Amino acid sequence: MTVRVGIMGATGYTALELLKILVRHPQVEVTALTTRSEDRPHVSSIHPQFHKVLDLHLENWGAKELAENCDCVFGCLPHAASASVIPEILDAGMKVVDLSADYRLNDPDVYSQWYGADHPDAERMKTTVYGLPELFREGIAEAQLVANPGCYPTGISLSLAPLLKNGFIRPDGIIADCKSGVSGAGRTPKMGTLYPECNESFSAYGVGTHRHMPEIEQNLSVYSGHQATVIFTPHLVPMDRGILSTCYAIPEKDASEKELLGLLEETYQNEPFVRVRSDLPATKHVAGTNFCDITVRRVKDRVITISCIDNLIKGASGAAVQNFNLMYGFAETTALL
Amino acid sequence: MTVRVGIMGATGYTALELLKILVRHPQVEVTALTTRSEDRPHVSSIHPQFHKVLDLHLENWGAKELAENCDCVFGCLPHAASASVIPEILDAGMKVVDLSADYRLNDPDVYSQWYGADHPDAERMKTTVYGLPELFREGIAEAQLVANPGCYPTGISLSLAPLLKNGFIRPDGIIADCKSGVSGAGRTPKMGTLYPECNESFSAYGVGTHRHMPEIEQNLSVYSGHQATVIFTPHLVPMDRGILSTCYAIPEKDASEKELLGLLEETYQNEPFVRVRSDLPATKHVAGTNFCDITVRRVKDRVITISCIDNLIKGASGAAVQNFNLMYGFAETTALL
Amino acid sequence: MTVRVGIMGATGYTALELLKILVRHPQVEVTALTTRSEDRPHVSSIHPQFHKVLDLHLENWGAKELAENCDCVFGCLPHAASASVIPEILDAGMKVVDLSADYRLNDPDVYSQWYGADHPDAERMKTTVYGLPELFREGIAEAQLVANPGCYPTGISLSLAPLLKNGFIRPDGIIADCKSGVSGAGRTPKMGTLYPECNESFSAYGVGTHRHMPEIEQNLSVYSGHQATVIFTPHLVPMDRGILSTCYAIPEKDASEKELLGLLEETYQNEPFVRVRSDLPATKHVAGTNFCDITVRRVKDRVITISCIDNLIKGASGAAVQNFNLMYGFAETTALL
Amino acid sequence: MTVRVGIMGATGYTALELLKILVRHPQVEVTALTTRSEDRPHVSSIHPQFHKVLDLHLENWGAKELAENCDCVFGCLPHAASASVIPEILDAGMKVVDLSADYRLNDPDVYSQWYGADHPDAERMKTTVYGLPELFREGIAEAQLVANPGCYPTGISLSLAPLLKNGFIRPDGIIADCKSGVSGAGRTPKMGTLYPECNESFSAYGVGTHRHMPEIEQNLSVYSGHQATVIFTPHLVPMDRGILSTCYAIPEKDASEKELLGLLEETYQNEPFVRVRSDLPATKHVAGTNFCDITVRRVKDRVITISCIDNLIKGASGAAVQNFNLMYGFAETTALL
Repeated sequence: MTVRVGIMGATGYTALELLKILVRHPQVEVTALTTRSEDRPHVSSIHPQFHKVLDLHLENWGAKELAENCDCVFGCLPHAASASVIPEILDAGMKVVDLSADYRLNDPDVYSQWYGADHPDAERMKTTVYGLPELFREGIAEAQLVANPGCYPTGISLSLAPLLKNGFIRPDGIIADCKSGVSGAGRTPKMGTLYPECNESFSAYGVGTHRHMPEIEQNLSVYSGHQATVIFTPHLVPMDRGILSTCYAIPEKDASEKELLGLLEETYQNEPFVRVRSDLPATKHVAGTNFCDITVRRVKDRVITISCIDNLIKGASGAAVQNFNLMYGFAETTALL
Repeated sequence: MTVRVGIMGATGYTALELLKILVRHPQVEVTALTTRSEDRPHVSSIHPQFHKVLDLHLENWGAKELAENCDCVFGCLPHAASASVIPEILDAGMKVVDLSADYRLNDPDVYSQWYGADHPDAERMKTTVYGLPELFREGIAEAQLVANPGCYPTGISLSLAPLLKNGFIRPDGIIADCKSGVSGAGRTPKMGTLYPECNESFSAYGVGTHRHMPEIEQNLSVYSGHQATVIFTPHLVPMDRGILSTCYAIPEKDASEKELLGLLEETYQNEPFVRVRSDLPATKHVAGTNFCDITVRRVKDRVITISCIDNLIKGASGAAVQNFNLMYGFAETTALL
Repeated sequence: MTVRVGIMGATGYTALELLKILVRHPQVEVTALTTRSEDRPHVSSIHPQFHKVLDLHLENWGAKELAENCDCVFGCLPHAASASVIPEILDAGMKVVDLSADYRLNDPDVYSQWYGADHPDAERMKTTVYGLPELFREGIAEAQLVANPGCYPTGISLSLAPLLKNGFIRPDGIIADCKSGVSGAGRTPKMGTLYPECNESFSAYGVGTHRHMPEIEQNLSVYSGHQATVIFTPHLVPMDRGILSTCYAIPEKDASEKELLGLLEETYQNEPFVRVRSDLPATKHVAGTNFCDITVRRVKDRVITISCIDNLIKGASGAAVQNFNLMYGFAETTALL
Repeated sequence: MTVRVGIMGATGYTALELLKILVRHPQVEVTALTTRSEDRPHVSSIHPQFHKVLDLHLENWGAKELAENCDCVFGCLPHAASASVIPEILDAGMKVVDLSADYRLNDPDVYSQWYGADHPDAERMKTTVYGLPELFREGIAEAQLVANPGCYPTGISLSLAPLLKNGFIRPDGIIADCKSGVSGAGRTPKMGTLYPECNESFSAYGVGTHRHMPEIEQNLSVYSGHQATVIFTPHLVPMDRGILSTCYAIPEKDASEKELLGLLEETYQNEPFVRVRSDLPATKHVAGTNFCDITVRRVKDRVITISCIDNLIKGASGAAVQNFNLMYGFAETTALL
């Protein structure tokens, strides 16, 4: 069986990584790439990596043309733009994995508060499946629309959620100090992400105001059943890709490092993409892969978890294909190992 | 007046930065550079930056030869090695700024516990002046020996100490999540600091075990009068230089971001090298300078301070010259602006 | 059919990349990894990327143990070390792809001159097949031993050889100005490849003395039938991987840029891994792939070719698997696209 | 004596480096910074490095306001924009160091050909002094307007000009293969200079079409008296700053490496900023300095020169202050060592 796949908004870094994975997928034929521009650029002029690999032009297509060419669409559009077109895509019968933030939150009020506008498709967002299979696999297989998780929430949630659910840490006073490569800032020219601005520099941004904060709290609360509050501090690292999250939590009950590691090992023993390790992870060791490496430490009066992912793979495009595989009943690891 | 200055252990990065500053210092003549090697390498063969700038050979000298050539010595030796030779240097009448860790702690037992051996000069370490002028200026001017602060403790202490002393934050539950460039790891070949190992990677190290932890706690406790406990997590950033410290503390009393910033502004208003700022600092903006940039944020139930220094300048060699200037009665900013 | 494969000298970067490719190869089972150390380290302690991916220990094995476990061996040993063990491996009946320099040159005197010692297996080196399939495919399929090309010679030879063979450029006065990422320098700790030495720096090395020079001249001469002389200048670029080679040649006959591009297009039209392009290539666009991207320009009185490869893939481990596929009659692109 | 100095176009990287040097200059008071924007940004909002160091706003000023506040102006405007305002500045009696390309060439036709438009101040450009003191010091001291050299032409000209003038190399067949850090591309947001596009990549650009080519040929020809032709190939290196130029020339007469080095040593023996060295230079060893490091090699049938500069210092702002010092009779090295 071959699924005809399209990518909406195919000019950026997540689309690039998605294409790299999809051209290797035995059950996929990439049949559509879209862009707002009218001049039908060849994919190799946007992504030179695909010279003589993929012979497609980016089209300024809407739901109608996509429906004629695709069975499934990956959405790589900015938030708001995504939710304004996805309803049509769904009505046309296509399946959708949305990499934007539009369908991740399940509370329209929280969305309005953090994204500064009412949600254009509020009813649907309340019930959309959140595509983090290791925590919320149920429902993904049957879903027509899956909200692909944010990069930061993925690494943080995978390391803290089991500890919280099993009562090892308290739901309050959680701190997530996170560090991301520059590709996470996207491909739109901005002075702040010019090479000479980022290189040889390290800085924090969006302290206390980053839109991933409510998404992280939602994940931890829904999975654990405890209302979690998280302080989230993102930082920019002078590298292309990778996110390392150092999380600090207050112990709920006394447990040794060994017991905490054991719980994580047990939780993820059958997960192909979560690797619990006793040594300290590094982003380089998961770069280009769909793995999330996690360890945990007990220091003084805190539990510390450290997790690493490739922000463009497990934090975006790899996770999207993982969801796609579940939605179509393919082996979950297809094209991802 | 000209001070004849020597550097013990002149082959590394702190010595390199020290030399760059000292050759610009109007009251300094660099008269001695030492190394363990016997072959008298020219400084330009160790530090090519000094080709046609400085014409000196590195000598395998001890206290006796140093005494014949120098009035003051900067110690850039590893810990233990430093304390084993400094007593002779002092007995010979020279002044010393020691950049090693040997005289920073004032409790021999804490030293033994963290450095795995008894201190070779325990009595002296109890009373040695800690050279962080902004917090402990008193005594530096009269000292024959000054212990130069560690790179991490400098940025962390400058941001937290005033808040703790003035009762704005609690002394317990402090978290210091720090990120440093690779030059902090020194110039000795190790696989872990090879370019292809560090580049495009971000990782934590020494979690809960780094030797700067007791030094940070000592600084905060001595300055504030409250026994502070700190969880210190260092990380390695793929860049040459710079440390950014993100610190999380529990408020002791209710205060707005504005009040907290105001306290820091007031504390450091006459300090030439501490720049309190309302925007978020970046390591690039202090690179190559002796500045420490600091800001503070109030997020949920925490106070967050963020500080940046150049680990080799304000975190080592710049601070050393700042102490040197105080010890000789020169303007504190000489050769540092 | 499954081939049992071993890697001799499995601790470095070429072995790491080789393993990444081989674990994806449907006809390969990795059965042996060797090292000089005696303590049988687990592969994940040497290459953390393989945590929970590959469960093997590195063994201090010789030809005998390898013969019991492998059908084919990839040699990732230093030169000289390689030629001292490969004869036994071959006598034991295994096939070998040697990534060292030992069997690339076909003239023992040239080897002695450039490598400072007589070749331990001189007779064999005279006739060993040079594994650059795009220029010398003949013989690889039948070979028991294949000499895998050097990283620099690969990109240079693929861009210049067709122009020289077809009489478009002169065999004398060729200049190859090449730039390589730091991984090419290997994983052995040296001060020169420490992060703070390489980062934010660019330099030339081995000017007129690099051992790849005679290999380049041999390739061009053998393929074209003209005795070529090449000036080769390698440079170190602050990045992990990638080689860009800018080559300057004197036109032999008048030809337009279009004609030169046409010749290259025609030469490589059926080659899966050489991509002739009219725009300027960048190392990033071939990073992690087995592609060699090439373009050509006519400027004033010179022909300029520019080629890019990933030094660890097409310049080493990818080419090795390409040769392996030919030696076993597998599709040449298996595990490489 | 204090000179009141202004910078036209103060938002970019050359202006930033210029300011860092000028605030250290004992005879300079910075009295004006200009920008096209109308909102009078504070310098520290454009260049955070100057927080609490310099208290000036960027003004949208023309010649009239500059004349009221400045004795001398440094022009950091784009080409064409620069020549359209400089005549007024000069008429108002101010001295000018122009860092744009507008007054470097002395042939209006060559300018039109390479810059695609007629020169707005053609007569003046014919006779403007070219501010490369080591080759053309004469006239700088008396000049009201000095054209500051381009970054690439500086390193190339300093290494080749003496060899050409003294008949050691031929004026034809010269190849300059140059590598520059990304800061040379300026601070205007473009996709091509985003961090994720440049990092971990190396590429050539402007092959045979870069506007510095005629400037290089003019320098070599004017200085040597021989009409030189140069093939110039610039490349982009993933680092902030530094240019390394590898130049290949055909020997005119037989000379050893030692003789060639000797000539360069002799030529520059009294120059404070040119360092001839026998080892291979690296950009890191001149970063942040006004030095140009040069060496020369004899390989086969070519002479190879390798030179390094900091593109923003000796390649721009440092050279500008060097010219300024000469124009005002200050010691040439003031604020530059």
